[in-house]
Amino acid sequence: MLTGKNYIDNKTLAQGNKTYKTFNPELNQENETVFTEATQEEINEAVSLASKAFKEFRTISGKQKALFLNTIADEILALDELLIQTYCSETGLPEGRARGERGRTVYQLRSFADLVAEGSWVDATIDTAIPNREPLPKSDIRKMNIPLGPIVVFGASNFPLAYSTAGGDTAAAFAAGCPVIVKSHPMHAGTGELVASAIINAAEKTGMPNGVFSNLNSSGIEVGQQLVSHPEVKAVGFTGSIRGGRALLDLAAKREEPIPVFAEMGSVNPVIMLPQALKNRSEDLANTYARSIALGTGQFCTNPGLILGIKGNDLTNFTNALANKIVKINPSCMLHPNIVAAYETNKEKAINQSGLIVVGGYENEVQSNYATQIITTVEGKTFLENTTLHQEVFGPFSMVVKCENIKQLEQIISELEGQLTGTIISDDNEVSEYPSVVAALQNRVGRIIFNGVPTGVEVCPSMVHGGPYPASTDSRFTAVGVNSIKRWIRPFSYQDWPNNLLPDELKNENPLQISRSVNGNFTKQEITS
Amino acid sequence: MLTGKNYIDNKTLAQGNKTYKTFNPELNQENETVFTEATQEEINEAVSLASKAFKEFRTISGKQKALFLNTIADEILALDELLIQTYCSETGLPEGRARGERGRTVYQLRSFADLVAEGSWVDATIDTAIPNREPLPKSDIRKMNIPLGPIVVFGASNFPLAYSTAGGDTAAAFAAGCPVIVKSHPMHAGTGELVASAIINAAEKTGMPNGVFSNLNSSGIEVGQQLVSHPEVKAVGFTGSIRGGRALLDLAAKREEPIPVFAEMGSVNPVIMLPQALKNRSEDLANTYARSIALGTGQFCTNPGLILGIKGNDLTNFTNALANKIVKINPSCMLHPNIVAAYETNKEKAINQSGLIVVGGYENEVQSNYATQIITTVEGKTFLENTTLHQEVFGPFSMVVKCENIKQLEQIISELEGQLTGTIISDDNEVSEYPSVVAALQNRVGRIIFNGVPTGVEVCPSMVHGGPYPASTDSRFTAVGVNSIKRWIRPFSYQDWPNNLLPDELKNENPLQISRSVNGNFTKQEITS
Repeated sequence: MLTGKNYIDNKTLAQGNKTYKTFNPELNQENETVFTEATQEEINEAVSLASKAFKEFRTISGKQKALFLNTIADEILALDELLIQTYCSETGLPEGRARGERGRTVYQLRSFADLVAEGSWVDATIDTAIPNREPLPKSDIRKMNIPLGPIVVFGASNFPLAYSTAGGDTAAAFAAGCPVIVKSHPMHAGTGELVASAIINAAEKTGMPNGVFSNLNSSGIEVGQQLVSHPEVKAVGFTGSIRGGRALLDLAAKREEPIPVFAEMGSVNPVIMLPQALKNRSEDLANTYARSIALGTGQFCTNPGLILGIKGNDLTNFTNALANKIVKINPSCMLHPNIVAAYETNKEKAINQSGLIVVGGYENEVQSNYATQIITTVEGKTFLENTTLHQEVFGPFSMVVKCENIKQLEQIISELEGQLTGTIISDDNEVSEYPSVVAALQNRVGRIIFNGVPTGVEVCPSMVHGGPYPASTDSRFTAVGVNSIKRWIRPFSYQDWPNNLLPDELKNENPLQISRSVNGNFTKQEITS
Repeated sequence: MLTGKNYIDNKTLAQGNKTYKTFNPELNQENETVFTEATQEEINEAVSLASKAFKEFRTISGKQKALFLNTIADEILALDELLIQTYCSETGLPEGRARGERGRTVYQLRSFADLVAEGSWVDATIDTAIPNREPLPKSDIRKMNIPLGPIVVFGASNFPLAYSTAGGDTAAAFAAGCPVIVKSHPMHAGTGELVASAIINAAEKTGMPNGVFSNLNSSGIEVGQQLVSHPEVKAVGFTGSIRGGRALLDLAAKREEPIPVFAEMGSVNPVIMLPQALKNRSEDLANTYARSIALGTGQFCTNPGLILGIKGNDLTNFTNALANKIVKINPSCMLHPNIVAAYETNKEKAINQSGLIVVGGYENEVQSNYATQIITTVEGKTFLENTTLHQEVFGPFSMVVKCENIKQLEQIISELEGQLTGTIISDDNEVSEYPSVVAALQNRVGRIIFNGVPTGVEVCPSMVHGGPYPASTDSRFTAVGVNSIKRWIRPFSYQDWPNNLLPDELKNENPLQISRSVNGNFTKQEITS
């Protein structure tokens, strides 16, 4: 049963009077539960509890944190059909997607559990003393990663599970030893409340300090702003629009103590179709890309919104084939009426730009919450001159740019904003003829893909989900994979500290049996001196 | 021979008309060379060349970069006495310090050379494909660190070699594959020009692309502001005042594309004197700390400016002994008349705060460029109530805070701003009785020291020179040691990329024989599949 309340102090709480409901896009009607937005007092209470909890949580062992993370995963699975049905009722996404995303969320939690149970993630680095060094003796110095403090996580509209309440940002923060305050996404507040209850249950079952987690409802921007401005909040995780992410970044930068904001803000994910590949496989490529563009009604950060090729019959054939394929896909609903409205506005804005041609779009009547896919095309010169055409149209929209030649294609890549991904479609060895295209693309993106589609973000240590601004606010970090923990930690040194008072990670005996760098060599051996 | 010109395009250049001279604090007079500040055109030229150079420099092998770095070190040593004499004439620091700092600078360059020659710093992480995975096949994904782009480095006033032109920021940037534009510090523009000539010589001898390095003169703030605002600059390194660092951080945050600024801005470096240690060793401690406070005329970021103890006879005895020792040390000149003036102003401001008592200070007449050391004391309650007393007084100044009890001491620590270091002075096992003091201190600093002094920053992988704001602008990084390279790099993923087109670091054969994480295991072995 949903309560519509916030989770603070391990209890449900709703002292405010601003309320809202979620929306069922499939049924085109509001859901029943009334959610109550968190008040300033509730926000302060949540942050104050997180700050207190940090004192204990930062010292909790990796094995205990792993138990907490695994128990969250168990509790999420225990929500069973209630979670799946709530998810679907708040998103209009199919059950298969809900189950898949739940699986991914659980996998992320367990990956972080494995990481901290093993323990080497602290990057223990030890340089032992050299008392007789000339001209000055060398001290014993030992470094390891420690958590930053309370983290605020903003739920993403398009991933109610994997990038929201117990998603990657939260899992990474808990693994690091940071308490989390989630600013719940208003479009799936019910899903958020259920997952929050799973986290609270897990925290209680595994003896985590009260305040290690809070879930705050919010339908506007004020709750988020107050959280990011709060002096005891030490970092922010966000997935969403450029406008939203930039606003938080600016707010955090203006604080007396500026704090890191990692915002993943999406991108148009350029796809370069090289000439030979287009010549030989235009039908296949059109099929593959029609599916990738329409996948999840185009509501992925990695949706291929921009396709670049060299002008000519092959590109024209591909573009026509792509339009033909995509109009045959049945349209589907978007996550929320606001998202459909934004899609229509942005699509219209793009179409109204001089020189943009609609090659094909789904034209039959659809329900008001449904998005109709569309393929457009434009000359390279026009694209270069009009940066409005470079903006993301979030939804099943894609633009094929007809470049005059490889030089113009390379120029276009170089002038794009930062992107999450870039894809090269190539015949076997064709790409080796275009090293400067690959170099230009690498300079603008976080991940490059060979002969695939950008949609689909594997959760693994080698994944980079991030990229140059505005794909993310800091290209030095990733939002996906265990390395995303690096956003929430800092290195810390102990100089000449007594061995018995060092944390286990840095003790001579290496009681946790982790991999450490000792005087430049990686080893699990103990230090005898 | 000094020219007073900028180094751009591998040439000396001076098109501007704004000029300035450096100052010899020992002789209390200006040095002869006239330096010409860089113009807007020269700034644009330097950045444009850096941006072009980046295209080539980012692909240069680790061994070639190592040769470049080692050759810079060689060229610096080849400057020999000219460098040492110029350094001394621009700082008033003794020759021994000049030689020591040169040694440290050369060591830093060679450490980074070793790092990139070996190659494992790229953190190669490989997850191989699982084509038959259900429900979806898994792609081959391979990640490594790549450079951010052109970096602007601001020379520090107090370390003309080790934290300036070819200091840690620059060495780390070159190692990463980032071109560097140095905003030379006006107080030691001659030292900067000589080191710049060494870098240019090394770049030419080792075939580095033109534009990999520029050195721009500047006596005001405009050159720095223009550099940080330039769209083709991708990150900033700074060592200096909180005011200066924060101004650059704010400027970088307002850019259309915000960029990372790592500013190390100093701290008061709290020292906690535990009761038993004070009781048993007050004379020794007074000796040690008098030397540490007066070292280099107190011109270190790690100078111990704040000493905390529990009120009582032992603390009073220590404070009196400290004052007695410190007045016996001969005063020395500061780096520049502006720095002496700032010291006098800040000292005066502190002394004028209600409740601050001067315990002892050097009182004989000194030259106008000399700073006189001073020891002050204040009640814990007064310190807590007046945050002006928390501010750094850069120079040979220290304040002993008399805390009512351990609880108040812990509260004071918790309310301090972020610090580079914290020190605990303890009898053997005494510290183990105060876990909450250590925890509070850890939460405010980047490095804790047991029974030592904070001055002296070892250059080694386990060093953290940084800390919570305002010690640095981002506590997730260090300014010292090879890990400082992490400020200038970003992770980058290749998905299903053809093996022969991958960079050597990620090829199946592991031709560079580096340590890599392959499917979760660290190994130097090749991948056979």
